Amino acid sequence: MPAGHDTPVVAIVMGSRSDWPTMKHAADILSELGVVHDCRVVSAHRTPDRMTDFAKGAKDAGLKVIIAGAGGAAHLPGMIASMTALPVLGVPVESAALNGQDSLLSIVQMPGGVPVGTLAIGKAGAKNAGLLAASIIALGDAGLAQRLADWRQAQTDSVPHSVED
Amino acid sequence: MPAGHDTPVVAIVMGSRSDWPTMKHAADILSELGVVHDCRVVSAHRTPDRMTDFAKGAKDAGLKVIIAGAGGAAHLPGMIASMTALPVLGVPVESAALNGQDSLLSIVQMPGGVPVGTLAIGKAGAKNAGLLAASIIALGDAGLAQRLADWRQAQTDSVPHSVED
Amino acid sequence: MPAGHDTPVVAIVMGSRSDWPTMKHAADILSELGVVHDCRVVSAHRTPDRMTDFAKGAKDAGLKVIIAGAGGAAHLPGMIASMTALPVLGVPVESAALNGQDSLLSIVQMPGGVPVGTLAIGKAGAKNAGLLAASIIALGDAGLAQRLADWRQAQTDSVPHSVED
Amino acid sequence: MPAGHDTPVVAIVMGSRSDWPTMKHAADILSELGVVHDCRVVSAHRTPDRMTDFAKGAKDAGLKVIIAGAGGAAHLPGMIASMTALPVLGVPVESAALNGQDSLLSIVQMPGGVPVGTLAIGKAGAKNAGLLAASIIALGDAGLAQRLADWRQAQTDSVPHSVED
Amino acid sequence: MPAGHDTPVVAIVMGSRSDWPTMKHAADILSELGVVHDCRVVSAHRTPDRMTDFAKGAKDAGLKVIIAGAGGAAHLPGMIASMTALPVLGVPVESAALNGQDSLLSIVQMPGGVPVGTLAIGKAGAKNAGLLAASIIALGDAGLAQRLADWRQAQTDSVPHSVED
Amino acid sequence: MPAGHDTPVVAIVMGSRSDWPTMKHAADILSELGVVHDCRVVSAHRTPDRMTDFAKGAKDAGLKVIIAGAGGAAHLPGMIASMTALPVLGVPVESAALNGQDSLLSIVQMPGGVPVGTLAIGKAGAKNAGLLAASIIALGDAGLAQRLADWRQAQTDSVPHSVED
Amino acid sequence: MPAGHDTPVVAIVMGSRSDWPTMKHAADILSELGVVHDCRVVSAHRTPDRMTDFAKGAKDAGLKVIIAGAGGAAHLPGMIASMTALPVLGVPVESAALNGQDSLLSIVQMPGGVPVGTLAIGKAGAKNAGLLAASIIALGDAGLAQRLADWRQAQTDSVPHSVED
Amino acid sequence: MPAGHDTPVVAIVMGSRSDWPTMKHAADILSELGVVHDCRVVSAHRTPDRMTDFAKGAKDAGLKVIIAGAGGAAHLPGMIASMTALPVLGVPVESAALNGQDSLLSIVQMPGGVPVGTLAIGKAGAKNAGLLAASIIALGDAGLAQRLADWRQAQTDSVPHSVED
Repeated sequence: MPAGHDTPVVAIVMGSRSDWPTMKHAADILSELGVVHDCRVVSAHRTPDRMTDFAKGAKDAGLKVIIAGAGGAAHLPGMIASMTALPVLGVPVESAALNGQDSLLSIVQMPGGVPVGTLAIGKAGAKNAGLLAASIIALGDAGLAQRLADWRQAQTDSVPHSVED
Repeated sequence: MPAGHDTPVVAIVMGSRSDWPTMKHAADILSELGVVHDCRVVSAHRTPDRMTDFAKGAKDAGLKVIIAGAGGAAHLPGMIASMTALPVLGVPVESAALNGQDSLLSIVQMPGGVPVGTLAIGKAGAKNAGLLAASIIALGDAGLAQRLADWRQAQTDSVPHSVED
Repeated sequence: MPAGHDTPVVAIVMGSRSDWPTMKHAADILSELGVVHDCRVVSAHRTPDRMTDFAKGAKDAGLKVIIAGAGGAAHLPGMIASMTALPVLGVPVESAALNGQDSLLSIVQMPGGVPVGTLAIGKAGAKNAGLLAASIIALGDAGLAQRLADWRQAQTDSVPHSVED
Repeated sequence: MPAGHDTPVVAIVMGSRSDWPTMKHAADILSELGVVHDCRVVSAHRTPDRMTDFAKGAKDAGLKVIIAGAGGAAHLPGMIASMTALPVLGVPVESAALNGQDSLLSIVQMPGGVPVGTLAIGKAGAKNAGLLAASIIALGDAGLAQRLADWRQAQTDSVPHSVED
Repeated sequence: MPAGHDTPVVAIVMGSRSDWPTMKHAADILSELGVVHDCRVVSAHRTPDRMTDFAKGAKDAGLKVIIAGAGGAAHLPGMIASMTALPVLGVPVESAALNGQDSLLSIVQMPGGVPVGTLAIGKAGAKNAGLLAASIIALGDAGLAQRLADWRQAQTDSVPHSVED
Repeated sequence: MPAGHDTPVVAIVMGSRSDWPTMKHAADILSELGVVHDCRVVSAHRTPDRMTDFAKGAKDAGLKVIIAGAGGAAHLPGMIASMTALPVLGVPVESAALNGQDSLLSIVQMPGGVPVGTLAIGKAGAKNAGLLAASIIALGDAGLAQRLADWRQAQTDSVPHSVED
Repeated sequence: MPAGHDTPVVAIVMGSRSDWPTMKHAADILSELGVVHDCRVVSAHRTPDRMTDFAKGAKDAGLKVIIAGAGGAAHLPGMIASMTALPVLGVPVESAALNGQDSLLSIVQMPGGVPVGTLAIGKAGAKNAGLLAASIIALGDAGLAQRLADWRQAQTDSVPHSVED
Repeated sequence: MPAGHDTPVVAIVMGSRSDWPTMKHAADILSELGVVHDCRVVSAHRTPDRMTDFAKGAKDAGLKVIIAGAGGAAHLPGMIASMTALPVLGVPVESAALNGQDSLLSIVQMPGGVPVGTLAIGKAGAKNAGLLAASIIALGDAGLAQRLADWRQAQTDSVPHSVED
């Protein structure tokens, strides 16, 4: 998690502590890119008031982007999006029986009027939520834009040519 | 809709007025069985505060069962269930692209701790939500139990034997 | 299973003893909430007469809610619902090949006229069937309503804020 | 439908009169092959007693094969199979929302011990149920075996070579 | 496999030796019921001539029912059915990536004119193919009919009432 | 389309002119909110060089967010995202045979490292892509933030309470 | 269809004349590119001998590529591939109930050892089968390679930039 | 990988080194058949320029067929096909959450105009891509045609008749 006194600009919320092994990939990439962020458990179903307080207070708390991960009937991203006009990114966490197909559809199929930018199921999606949040913050932060460009270039450079070691 | 001065014991809520052609099948069967009910539009995503007020006030308003219908990323039944311990029944409304598969999974795949009793996709599900609500109310209303038993018997008697007229 | 001389108000039935590791989550929550219940194996396909006797006798036996769990071509909940007007709740048990997708559709897609309130696939669904049954019984049992409200509050209070220990 | 005084050897049953436009394709092929049969509406959910009477009495009534068609949570074929050891063939009727995927899984995914021979969704499946029933009856009826062989040959001969008229 | 000098009346064929752990459940039940049968590997794709010889010669070899199991793009049951008018039963074997959904659709969705009676995916389906074959043979074999009835009764009797030992 | 001399900050690209009836819902909402934007056809498969030129030049052209819509094997959003670090939002357009399920999976299941924020299938998704783009631009444009907040409030106010006119 | 005395190098076969409105898109593109081809109805299920004769004789007849289209339990492409080592391309034709999902899986999920190069469901897939066949023939026909390259360039040039006329 | 100084005629490319355990089955069969080939990592998303250089230079490099494997939102085969008129074969690699269903649809559902011949998900598909590539090369290489015919015959001969050792 980010060091020190800076105010987080990205919040990473998840429906259950069991989502953390997935969602930490969002936190890791934000840390790597130097984006101050905050991680917490907020359950749409078990703590609806906490969710409402969080969502309605997000803008005043200085947040610019919210990343929400949940599994199964995954209502957290969409419900947060219903209570803030900040950009909300959703990560479908793999579910027990249906491998995240339920999570994906519950997050992405939002009705017109309340958007959630949805990423892939699982760890890749969490990582990409972090990267997409960074690209959004970078629109107003040239330093971050440069770090992100460098990260992208390093990623490209790291792809091996050979199929074997 | 219910006649006169009686307090509704069942509320039928739906995410959009466009859900009414589906959800009216719940209202029709409740009317037929003489169960006082109330129908209204409550959108989880476009009117979250209205939803919260409704769900938190449902018990004190005298409601005993809530029927909620929604389509796509259908969060209404589950979110109401997160804010009341009354029985909540969910009806997946057929969606534009995915025929209600998204609605079904978004409603039925609730996490342990917050139940939604889910019915079939579309009109059959709405009718059955009305019947299931009536069977619940009937546990404490012998007259309704008799009317429901009669309705069931009439349904059985109405099934033709022949495949053609 | 419930202690002593009380008559069960909820029956938990399942198609096979192999469904018990799933369905016991319904029993556990009912025990925790002090709802007297009864668990038994009733197979729609292998013991149809036992099923018929059970379903037709359920009301006279004092039952108020029936929870039925089954997997694959899961006919048990719907067939019981065809023979009693009591509220029937269905739990799709995870199946070998299709992860419970067959179980879910076989239970939830009931025709108009014979409702089954369906819960999520697997353990979460079984737990929620217990909770939904309790919420139905609680409509006529103020003590249970209070215990259920307390349980819900305790659940809310138990959700951690932090993503890590 | 079969002419005159002969006892039907195949019964075609369906859950609703609305299944007849599909199921008549089974009847048509049996008529064409001269297999005496009988068609009737038997609903697993709305007329469970009629279904039980039919299934338990099928063998004594002289039936040799039962064709059962149903849609949605299609329990009719499997429940009949639970109450008779006669061969039961199931036809998934196309359903409103899910195009018969629910019907197919509800019929085909029977547990070990109670078989239903399942055909394709819709009219092709109904026709094939008739053909499969005929092939079963033909094992003990050389005349029918010849008529079936002739029908198959005629089908082969009728396939055009050219893609256009 | 069947004892002695009797001619098999049921053939169990499969696309690969790797299907045997599934298909042996068909053989086991036929053995238990005293139905003389034969098991062999016949690949539609790797040994098409062997398949053609088998299918075209099946009737003259005295076979009455053919059980065919295959996985993935499972063409064996349907292709055999295209070359014999004997009843053909298909068993979808679980596939590596898609859990047998591809196998199921490839077997069950036959066009009108060439039927395959399809059973459940995997072991339960194989067992049921054996039972369905037995019920077909039993139409002309009263002794087998009795053994099958006894087996069914024993199955019913063996279902425990209690969920736990 | 936006008036006058302003440089577009959002580009709406689509794989085919036939996608326009879907994608115009993104343009409409951006126009309504006063976000200067640009619409064009760029096909990943038929005009890969045009796509490359567009994606690589997007940042220097002053764009801040890219909305890309495509159907079937929908590669446009992901390939643009591979060539720019700007935020890319993807809209799955309904496809002929598979109703957009192929479009959705082709867009959302991006590998870790190259994010696409994916919206719902079809028109609702296009509208929401416009809204999400606006919310991103609004982070650096207080006037737009206010217009967006007003739009959201008006949307909330416009939801009727009654299910009928 | 090809002009005159030339021997066809591509055969387009389909399971039923009803597949022609789909498969003619393969023929059209081959005609446009000047590839001599031949179209005929060959049903795996209704004319297995015709299929075998065709497949085994394909190479000696001078064919270089075979395009096979079929729907439902689509066995034609795979069975032809089992009887020739020529390249076989498969086109899943849209099916009545399942929109071609069954056709696609029945064609593409071939076991290791017998390949079918599968194209998209429906008309786009048929057109692409023609293009892929042309690209294969073009490896040994420089004139065709040039015509194909020109066709591809013309396709690229024909993509409009503007979303509206 | 192929020995010595010969120019590869088949290239096997994959989106990530983690695809190699799948894709090596394509290489193995090409080696077995003596087809000179080349294997390399080319990521559509992480190395788009490398992909463009590869695809545009493929023909001049002497390649005749390209095999491309990728998972998830698998854009590599289709994007290569957009930049070369050589035959492109696609292999859907099994993905983490969705078992390759996303990979399959992302590869096979190409729009009309840009074909990818798609093989089965996973190892069988990779092996078959190698075989299909060989059958294409063999159209202009009689020696390879003979080796391929021999391989096919050996495969047929290797299929056991007995289900057990």
